[in-house]
Amino acid sequence: MRVMGIDPGLTRCGVGVVEGRPGAPGRMIAVDVVRTDPEAPLADRLLALDEGLRRHIESHRPETVAVERVFSQHNVASVIGTAQASGVALLAAARAGLPTATYTPSEAKAAICGNGTADKRQVTAMVTRILRLSEAPRPADAADALAIAICHLWRGGMKARLAAADGSRTPPPRKGGPR
Amino acid sequence: MRVMGIDPGLTRCGVGVVEGRPGAPGRMIAVDVVRTDPEAPLADRLLALDEGLRRHIESHRPETVAVERVFSQHNVASVIGTAQASGVALLAAARAGLPTATYTPSEAKAAICGNGTADKRQVTAMVTRILRLSEAPRPADAADALAIAICHLWRGGMKARLAAADGSRTPPPRKGGPR
Repeated sequence: MRVMGIDPGLTRCGVGVVEGRPGAPGRMIAVDVVRTDPEAPLADRLLALDEGLRRHIESHRPETVAVERVFSQHNVASVIGTAQASGVALLAAARAGLPTATYTPSEAKAAICGNGTADKRQVTAMVTRILRLSEAPRPADAADALAIAICHLWRGGMKARLAAADGSRTPPPRKGGPR
Repeated sequence: MRVMGIDPGLTRCGVGVVEGRPGAPGRMIAVDVVRTDPEAPLADRLLALDEGLRRHIESHRPETVAVERVFSQHNVASVIGTAQASGVALLAAARAGLPTATYTPSEAKAAICGNGTADKRQVTAMVTRILRLSEAPRPADAADALAIAICHLWRGGMKARLAAADGSRTPPPRKGGPR
């Protein structure tokens, strides 16, 4: 299954595409950040984001799109832009006829690091290990998008099978994660 | 100039189209509410909203789209859905190549009622008078969308000319508005 993870944002929107199948570790297909100009009118930014996401969907042909759910405990002003970006992301997937899923940041962190309060460095380190990348994904802030994609693959039942089949190479999630 | 006003919402999204030209009162072209099923998945709701808004844009051919700005003092959970709907509305306008504008609820109320804290009944009463409707617009909660459209027409410089040319039929904005 090929999953596109999206970490929504108006200025920087993370996109990570991961392919996985039961019993095998995931493989990174693409990672990118769609940027829009903070000085541009809001509608132009939403249009640029929509076009960027649609290009990635067309290029990488995911079967499912997983989007980070907007976290309501954030600062209200920043929540509005993030919510608008998440609406555009979910709409882009729906218009392409793709199923969607949403996960909270805590769900993604718990799936990847075994700890819903893991920090950014822990998430990046685990994404790098899980996808067997030679170095941390770049741009760095797209690691969250890969984490959302991995979270969806694993929540789809792959996690248990992967751990059983390949426990030596893919460390099981545990409290705290690597330093 | 023909303006489409949008009062964004995920469950009920108000749409009001008003045509006006300098020196003449506005004329209502259409008023409607695009509804989406609260039980449906979020992406399906955003897609249904996008399709409903695009149908209205195609049918009524506005030259500009004015969207109520999401008000950050609201309850955070409800702000997220409203922000997602506003993102879809602005994107629908931008994809149709139309210029957009946003106004806060207070700006629209001040433009229509001369009072940024006017209540819903005052706004409805003034919209009914300004557009010379024989009764209040239905569905009732689409009055705000007409108010946004009128606000945009008037902020475009029509307000002063209208008051000068037709002061007897269109009452000037004043504190408190009609009961």
